[in-house]
Amino acid sequence: MYNQAELKKLVNKAILNLSYNEEAAKLNDPVKYILSIGGKRLRPVLALMACNLFSDQIDDAIIPATGLEVFHNFTLVHDDIMDHAPVRRNLPTVHSKWNLNQAVLSGDVMAFMANECFLQTPSRHLLKVFKVFNKAAIEVCVGQQLDIDYEKATIVSHEEYLRMIELKTAALLAASSKIGAIIGGADDRDAEMLYEFGRYLGLAFQIQDDLLDIYGDIKVFGKIMGGDIISNKKTFMLVKALEIASIEQAKQLHEQFNLKEFDPDEKVQKVIGIYEDLNIKNISEVLANDYINSAFVLLDKISAKNERKTELVNIANSLIGRDN
Amino acid sequence: MYNQAELKKLVNKAILNLSYNEEAAKLNDPVKYILSIGGKRLRPVLALMACNLFSDQIDDAIIPATGLEVFHNFTLVHDDIMDHAPVRRNLPTVHSKWNLNQAVLSGDVMAFMANECFLQTPSRHLLKVFKVFNKAAIEVCVGQQLDIDYEKATIVSHEEYLRMIELKTAALLAASSKIGAIIGGADDRDAEMLYEFGRYLGLAFQIQDDLLDIYGDIKVFGKIMGGDIISNKKTFMLVKALEIASIEQAKQLHEQFNLKEFDPDEKVQKVIGIYEDLNIKNISEVLANDYINSAFVLLDKISAKNERKTELVNIANSLIGRDN
Repeated sequence: MYNQAELKKLVNKAILNLSYNEEAAKLNDPVKYILSIGGKRLRPVLALMACNLFSDQIDDAIIPATGLEVFHNFTLVHDDIMDHAPVRRNLPTVHSKWNLNQAVLSGDVMAFMANECFLQTPSRHLLKVFKVFNKAAIEVCVGQQLDIDYEKATIVSHEEYLRMIELKTAALLAASSKIGAIIGGADDRDAEMLYEFGRYLGLAFQIQDDLLDIYGDIKVFGKIMGGDIISNKKTFMLVKALEIASIEQAKQLHEQFNLKEFDPDEKVQKVIGIYEDLNIKNISEVLANDYINSAFVLLDKISAKNERKTELVNIANSLIGRDN
Repeated sequence: MYNQAELKKLVNKAILNLSYNEEAAKLNDPVKYILSIGGKRLRPVLALMACNLFSDQIDDAIIPATGLEVFHNFTLVHDDIMDHAPVRRNLPTVHSKWNLNQAVLSGDVMAFMANECFLQTPSRHLLKVFKVFNKAAIEVCVGQQLDIDYEKATIVSHEEYLRMIELKTAALLAASSKIGAIIGGADDRDAEMLYEFGRYLGLAFQIQDDLLDIYGDIKVFGKIMGGDIISNKKTFMLVKALEIASIEQAKQLHEQFNLKEFDPDEKVQKVIGIYEDLNIKNISEVLANDYINSAFVLLDKISAKNERKTELVNIANSLIGRDN
């Protein structure tokens, strides 16, 4: 059985071996760049773990798993355009390092490079795997649309927010788990349970990501940076806070978010003060924990030996910081 | 046997029946818009004609053919962003009517809607058809990259220009013909000849498109006469003219293209004057004709009855205006 580090290594190797149409070098430079700046390779690792649940032989899943990572990075390149984000993982985004047109076009080619990977799925699984991927790809676009829509909306319910992240983030993690399971030889019932397992992981992961924007940086920077608060980004915490706030607290939150000029530290402190009064950190953590627990209930039911499930348990725990 | 008008009708009907994820309506509005503003539906029509060469039953080819049109329109939406084009087919482009982010994202979802169509290819042809499509899709991106690169380059040879349009335009027409042939049951040799047939059509079509910018009727073509000259666009005519121009003529051409302020009519007249001295119109027409004739040589060799080839002959002739 492979552990997370070994799988990540296999994925990174497969990424380096991706084949490129080399006739226009400028097209590929941003692709190689975004694929080289790392990350956890969560989607392909999850796919390979799901495959490894059912089969010792995971070779067949490596290229399709790599397709999931290529697709994910395609969405990062285009999302960064839409968000006007200058930096990702402490490095310039593709559109900042090159330009907008290059980010659009190099992003586009990645979508078809991802297809190329899925076309290498063993033929007996090809149609099923490609359909699962493609459904998720469309859902990711729908989720991004809702994200854009909600940024402009005054009121977003926490149900709407959760459905948005379900589409934008969880759908691909769900598809990744299911694709790995299918290639590993899982039956339909187990494959579907792994889809749901991945979906819960994705929901927990995004809530944790929102939490880390406030409570993660403190370890690194010695203070709360609160980038999401400064930029008025709709997060689970904000959406939930506005839902349960008193009229006075809601007024104070809106005041902070309507400020044209402000001291960032002061804004962050004031918003966090309200979050603390409303117990938002705890509410968010409980929800993320609930999702991970729901994932474990499903994992329990899957027809594979328990000792084969440990790596999926570990990665699920790590997503909500339970491994710290 | 189906004629061009009947096939176009079938394609338009299939486009209207495309299924959408309706959860974020704003995502789909630009997709429906760009797909509704028409055009010749050249790629799907070509695919269906190629299918109809070998089979009376073309139903299996309709959805994959529609995928070709959806993909083509995806490239139009993103190309219009990159070209800062305000208008297409006399109507505002997607990024002008909505905004840049919407054009990026709605374009993206079309790539996966195209996949969805190809996934409906009959399973015995699925892998082959999808591979042909996806290779072309990557080539279209490479061609667009070369187009961007060449716009900035001082010297582009006519060979480089032709290779660029081969990738950007001809590759998809070639793939369209081949995909139709495969689904129609053509053997590998015939399918490959239809690929080459479509490639020649694409090359002729693009050269004719360049010619029409100057010599086409504005009412028919819907853009300003000489728009390519006004905007310094590299066309076959310009590239060829610079290659065969005398030192004095080349100097005059560069002078026109370096003008910061100018009377458009005057610039167009001066450039066309040099084109006429260099016989560029004739050279271009001869080349486009040669490509169509090469396409016909291939069509002749394909193992289908001659009377089944008439619609492909007609559409090929119409692409270079021989039907006028």
